[in-house]
Amino acid sequence: MAKKNMIVGQSGGPTAVINSSLYGVVSEGLLHPDTIEHIYGMVNGIEGFLNGTILDFQEALPGEKLSFLKNTPGAYLGSCRYKLPESLEDPVYPILFQKFEEMNIGWFFYIGGNDSMDTVSKLSRYAASIKSDIRIIGEPKTIDNDLVHTDHTPGFGSAARYVASTVREIILDANVYEKKSVTILEIMGRHAGWLTAASALARKYKGDNPMLIYLPETDFDQEAFLEKVTECLEQNCNVVVCVSEGIHDAHGTFICEYDSSVGTDTFGHKMLAGCGKYLENLVRNRLGVKARSVEFNVSQRCSASMLSATDQQEAIAAGSFGVQAALQGETGKMISFIRKENADGTYHMECGLEDVNDICNKEKTVPLEWITKDGTDVTDDFIRYARPLIQGTVSLPIGEDGLPLFVSRK
Amino acid sequence: MAKKNMIVGQSGGPTAVINSSLYGVVSEGLLHPDTIEHIYGMVNGIEGFLNGTILDFQEALPGEKLSFLKNTPGAYLGSCRYKLPESLEDPVYPILFQKFEEMNIGWFFYIGGNDSMDTVSKLSRYAASIKSDIRIIGEPKTIDNDLVHTDHTPGFGSAARYVASTVREIILDANVYEKKSVTILEIMGRHAGWLTAASALARKYKGDNPMLIYLPETDFDQEAFLEKVTECLEQNCNVVVCVSEGIHDAHGTFICEYDSSVGTDTFGHKMLAGCGKYLENLVRNRLGVKARSVEFNVSQRCSASMLSATDQQEAIAAGSFGVQAALQGETGKMISFIRKENADGTYHMECGLEDVNDICNKEKTVPLEWITKDGTDVTDDFIRYARPLIQGTVSLPIGEDGLPLFVSRK
Repeated sequence: MAKKNMIVGQSGGPTAVINSSLYGVVSEGLLHPDTIEHIYGMVNGIEGFLNGTILDFQEALPGEKLSFLKNTPGAYLGSCRYKLPESLEDPVYPILFQKFEEMNIGWFFYIGGNDSMDTVSKLSRYAASIKSDIRIIGEPKTIDNDLVHTDHTPGFGSAARYVASTVREIILDANVYEKKSVTILEIMGRHAGWLTAASALARKYKGDNPMLIYLPETDFDQEAFLEKVTECLEQNCNVVVCVSEGIHDAHGTFICEYDSSVGTDTFGHKMLAGCGKYLENLVRNRLGVKARSVEFNVSQRCSASMLSATDQQEAIAAGSFGVQAALQGETGKMISFIRKENADGTYHMECGLEDVNDICNKEKTVPLEWITKDGTDVTDDFIRYARPLIQGTVSLPIGEDGLPLFVSRK
Repeated sequence: MAKKNMIVGQSGGPTAVINSSLYGVVSEGLLHPDTIEHIYGMVNGIEGFLNGTILDFQEALPGEKLSFLKNTPGAYLGSCRYKLPESLEDPVYPILFQKFEEMNIGWFFYIGGNDSMDTVSKLSRYAASIKSDIRIIGEPKTIDNDLVHTDHTPGFGSAARYVASTVREIILDANVYEKKSVTILEIMGRHAGWLTAASALARKYKGDNPMLIYLPETDFDQEAFLEKVTECLEQNCNVVVCVSEGIHDAHGTFICEYDSSVGTDTFGHKMLAGCGKYLENLVRNRLGVKARSVEFNVSQRCSASMLSATDQQEAIAAGSFGVQAALQGETGKMISFIRKENADGTYHMECGLEDVNDICNKEKTVPLEWITKDGTDVTDDFIRYARPLIQGTVSLPIGEDGLPLFVSRK
């Protein structure tokens, strides 16, 4: 059989382990030199591919350099937020497949979230329509953990570990003074509260901070919130509250929008502060206590300092499994995670294959049974689900400059 | 000689190694059982001591538990922001010293920044005036690195390492898309720009991000800033800018105040956003490019994830040296760091003693010679100064829950 080439791309927002998945794909590809000739990377996803920006991994990251991908956050190949046209009659499809043919591509891998799985879905459906034998596989990736038909997603474990450990550190910081205080922590998650829920992992005992946790899966009521905070302040001098960026009221209005309706900058433009800042002001003004807020921001998705070894290993395994599946002829599938239990009750994970058409453009939110009735906390079921995913520390290689050693294209 | 007791307190904002200093003080104290009977901690500093809140370390952290202090961020003993009266005639002084006498205190240690050294100064001057033989020693601590008469301060190295590594991660995150973007990172430092300057350590090559660094030591001009950003965008698609929270213009107005003059929340109260948010809006509106901002916030002072082993060892050494000095009869002194060079040119640090009266209430800023003429960067002299302080990784002990194991009083 004549050799063919494989190509891999990354898409959507980065995570701490999106490059671990890339490492899994490329390193598995290298194990099949009799079948796979070149291993190409699309620079800036399918959009970059259309513009002709590609690289060859054997040149870009030769030998041991490839392994630095494992610990490098951000998307090594660059990313895009490009949606392929809905109609498979669109001229972009024949253009893409002509390029694939020119490059002798036999296998196509795309690492991303539900938008990226849309790309995998369209490409694989188009491939079927023209009877192309290119195998097209989706590799899951998102800190949001919102993909359906998979127990969890690569990227979530490390983001959850970052959130839990950072919340634990900020609790220590908040406990320093003996003056009543409320600290609001704003965590990523517009529609799914998985990452905010992970803040519960920071607790060391029942009743510990964070005393209140609000997810976007339930409606947020400002007056009920103020009452809850008041109750908590009676039990604990320093109250830490975790909120998803996407919390909204019963009318569907995002809490952060209540703020922007009034604030304007010097140019008269509306200033969008996050819901954390808004709630900080609400607490200070209505309850008259010291209040502050911290927006966790992009470090949630790009910090390597709290990589979960479990997450990293699973991301690599998913990458590798995807290549094996493609070589066995699978296409139009996304790699999924299936949770299994060892004989001793401990967790292990197996890879599976799911039809990508059942996954793309869908969103898995936190089950309502895992949220307490008053919507201010998560249940032990969530803790049991999430705890195994944050296990294990990764020792980052340190460079001569004393800082973590990352690889980049530049 | 009859045995006496020692007491130690913490004051001001926490750092990643303020408890390493505490560990140094207490563990050194334990080495002198023939001289020192009890080792007490003031809970919430001198203010807590006045209210009678103390603990005994042999009870609170017996045996090996003490060593967990080394890696625990936040102030284990709690803190205060209490300023002793200027007049030594104030009745609080005899009250304090009567309490010391009742508790048979022979040695008093206070870990803090320049405000806390004011407490050490006043107590030691009062002690001299009443011919008390209590030895009173200040232990330096601040992420701001703004104490005079010391090469640097414990806490700065770890905060600098956190800033440098986080900036490096966010640079990777910023490079993901091929669309022109400006990322503003707001770093702590109201009057001294040491920590913001540390962002320069993130660079991997000349011209790398962060392309612009603004410290509060020079005046900030908004138009000149916009011009510089425009220039940088011509060289690099994704520009990262680091600014101290305390940047101000030539009139002395903080840049963050330009924002609050207009924004109000739903209660009509002024909303204080940081200068990062203000500059984000300025760039978006004036330059028409994608802009975002990240406020590094309290993690700069409470994250254990990027502890500098050098900083941690020095904090312990300073704690230990302070106890040795007090036992030798020193009083009214702060432990200082003196930079030395090994025969091979590498760095080492020695502890010294400085008159605390020369240190308290003063502030050391970044020398103007270490800032480029246009005020948009630091020089290689700063890099040579700061690089040794961020060396070495600390492996955090991990608990059964998969997260760093910290000790706390609660």
